[in-house]
Amino acid sequence: MPLEALRHPITPAGLHYLLIHYDIPFVDAGAWALDVEGAVAQPQRLTLDDLRAREAVEVAVTMECAGNGRALFDPHVVSQPWLRDAVGTARWRGISMRSVLEEARVEDSAVEIVFTGLDRGIEGDVAQEYARSLPLEEAMRDEVVLAYEMNSAPLLPQHGYPLRLVVPGWYGMTNVKWLSRVTVLAEPFAGYQQSRAYRMRAHEDDDGEAVQRMVPRSLLVPPGIPEFLTRARTLRAGICVLEGRAWSGQAPIEHVEISVDGGATWEPAQLAADDLGRWAWRGWTYEWEARPGAHRVGSRARDAVGNAQPLAATWNVGGYANSAVQWVNVAVAEFGVTRERARSGASRPRPARPSGSRA
Amino acid sequence: MPLEALRHPITPAGLHYLLIHYDIPFVDAGAWALDVEGAVAQPQRLTLDDLRAREAVEVAVTMECAGNGRALFDPHVVSQPWLRDAVGTARWRGISMRSVLEEARVEDSAVEIVFTGLDRGIEGDVAQEYARSLPLEEAMRDEVVLAYEMNSAPLLPQHGYPLRLVVPGWYGMTNVKWLSRVTVLAEPFAGYQQSRAYRMRAHEDDDGEAVQRMVPRSLLVPPGIPEFLTRARTLRAGICVLEGRAWSGQAPIEHVEISVDGGATWEPAQLAADDLGRWAWRGWTYEWEARPGAHRVGSRARDAVGNAQPLAATWNVGGYANSAVQWVNVAVAEFGVTRERARSGASRPRPARPSGSRA
Repeated sequence: MPLEALRHPITPAGLHYLLIHYDIPFVDAGAWALDVEGAVAQPQRLTLDDLRAREAVEVAVTMECAGNGRALFDPHVVSQPWLRDAVGTARWRGISMRSVLEEARVEDSAVEIVFTGLDRGIEGDVAQEYARSLPLEEAMRDEVVLAYEMNSAPLLPQHGYPLRLVVPGWYGMTNVKWLSRVTVLAEPFAGYQQSRAYRMRAHEDDDGEAVQRMVPRSLLVPPGIPEFLTRARTLRAGICVLEGRAWSGQAPIEHVEISVDGGATWEPAQLAADDLGRWAWRGWTYEWEARPGAHRVGSRARDAVGNAQPLAATWNVGGYANSAVQWVNVAVAEFGVTRERARSGASRPRPARPSGSRA
Repeated sequence: MPLEALRHPITPAGLHYLLIHYDIPFVDAGAWALDVEGAVAQPQRLTLDDLRAREAVEVAVTMECAGNGRALFDPHVVSQPWLRDAVGTARWRGISMRSVLEEARVEDSAVEIVFTGLDRGIEGDVAQEYARSLPLEEAMRDEVVLAYEMNSAPLLPQHGYPLRLVVPGWYGMTNVKWLSRVTVLAEPFAGYQQSRAYRMRAHEDDDGEAVQRMVPRSLLVPPGIPEFLTRARTLRAGICVLEGRAWSGQAPIEHVEISVDGGATWEPAQLAADDLGRWAWRGWTYEWEARPGAHRVGSRARDAVGNAQPLAATWNVGGYANSAVQWVNVAVAEFGVTRERARSGASRPRPARPSGSRA
């Protein structure tokens, strides 16, 4: 998601980030069904019509890739080279995961639930369908959804059509797309994506801890206008309302602070109303009087249990959870780029002006 | 667009390629209007309601970035590093460009029409709103559309909401998004995107020719399944129906050929029905009996006026129009990756299988 899209509380279709390990499956929903199996008394096979006939639930969720920020780690980590744009917010509609497990009558021996997708590939020398597990108590949370709609439309092919798992608060790898099978296990799942990928490992011989919930992060809409190649920002002097959004998978966002001097001083931002609920990001604004010169603008978030976004994150083998503060260098000029505009012949007044173009 | 999405005749929302020079404008459509001005007898100011009240036209268009394939040029060209995925097909609905020009009564002196967007940035040291021109006779073509819908929905913010230009057959840079102004000129337009960018230049001192219509290209869905990091393909031996799509901005596609031996021999593909019309890609299939071993699979297109897709394209300063044949290396194994699947615990039969996962 290009960061100017932070202006939208719900990310427009096509701007929500995607991380697809293998190919996007081409699924015939008429032939598709979800199997619920394993340590259950009543195995289920549910068609899309079966799912749509049940009571629907909807939840707005901010979803972020565990690898968001990876490309900013030093030394470099070889994998999907995200800067900070691997995030998005959507309204997911479907049925409660718990209702399915209750109907299948999970046996007392159950400890984990494995979710398997239709996407197939080879990773770490293992041919596999993408599969991830959740502890039983996480899968039974109220807000865990088997979603067949995103923003009031059927799932797009690339977002998991016809059905995906959505686990609010967890990083994206948990939210298995193109879901075909839910398997209740009496022992922990040892699949590749659980035991080898998505672990916070300090070095190659470290088993590490599993990556689970999103750590706090705030991002801001880069002010002014960009240079095409460098993306360097230029802004006209005057009042500039900085805006952005913050989230944490661990607790509600309690505080966002802004610095316009590279971290020498911090001021509180104004938090917007909490319209989207607990599991989506929270908007914020900050009125900045931008004076001519070079500035370094950033924001940082803290959640209600005291997790604070760091200035630098801890390097790890997989390049996960790099929530270091986003700094934006902004060149503020008294007259913006007016003279250059005149030179390019584009200086006449515009009938409508996008809010992001005040340089 | 990941190339497995070639399976869809109309590219799903969010998979159509995007090339956005600056930021995505955040437009209030209620305050927006289109100005038609310059060498016209009757300047116009048209609101979105005005446009929607007029007779609508719709056209299915395959749109490709002029820089598609740039990252495959050697020496490397520094700009958007596309492999071959900068393409997509959509149904664009709006009003005929010609009807607007006729209503404005273009003066006899007119030679070019300039289309200016709301997206602002700095490029080549010039601050600018993105602007491109068309010769008058191109703008008057039947199928040139001012589009307010894409695939039966209002334009998404990133595709030019509320209005964009669509010029079937031309490369993507022509199709100005977030359109705010149509200016009729009595002399050729000398703006940055016309006189400096998007020209086929052999070396830095060459002015070059303007990039205009798409040259022929065929792409294929990579067969089998991918390895996560390398994207190397593995396929099970047996009949494999190769599929892909081909297009040319210059004339209808007449012929597509397939090679499964790296170009030593070529066989004709079967062209699908021409359902989407002249301005969209044409599907093709080819039944391949894949035998165990290493194979190199590719396709090439030829159009009705004899333009043929080359094995290697001519390097140029901007890295444009690299339509060299796409070669896919495929490792074919007698039993696919069945044994590894068994090792990963994922070998049981699936209730539904995506068509792309037969390895």
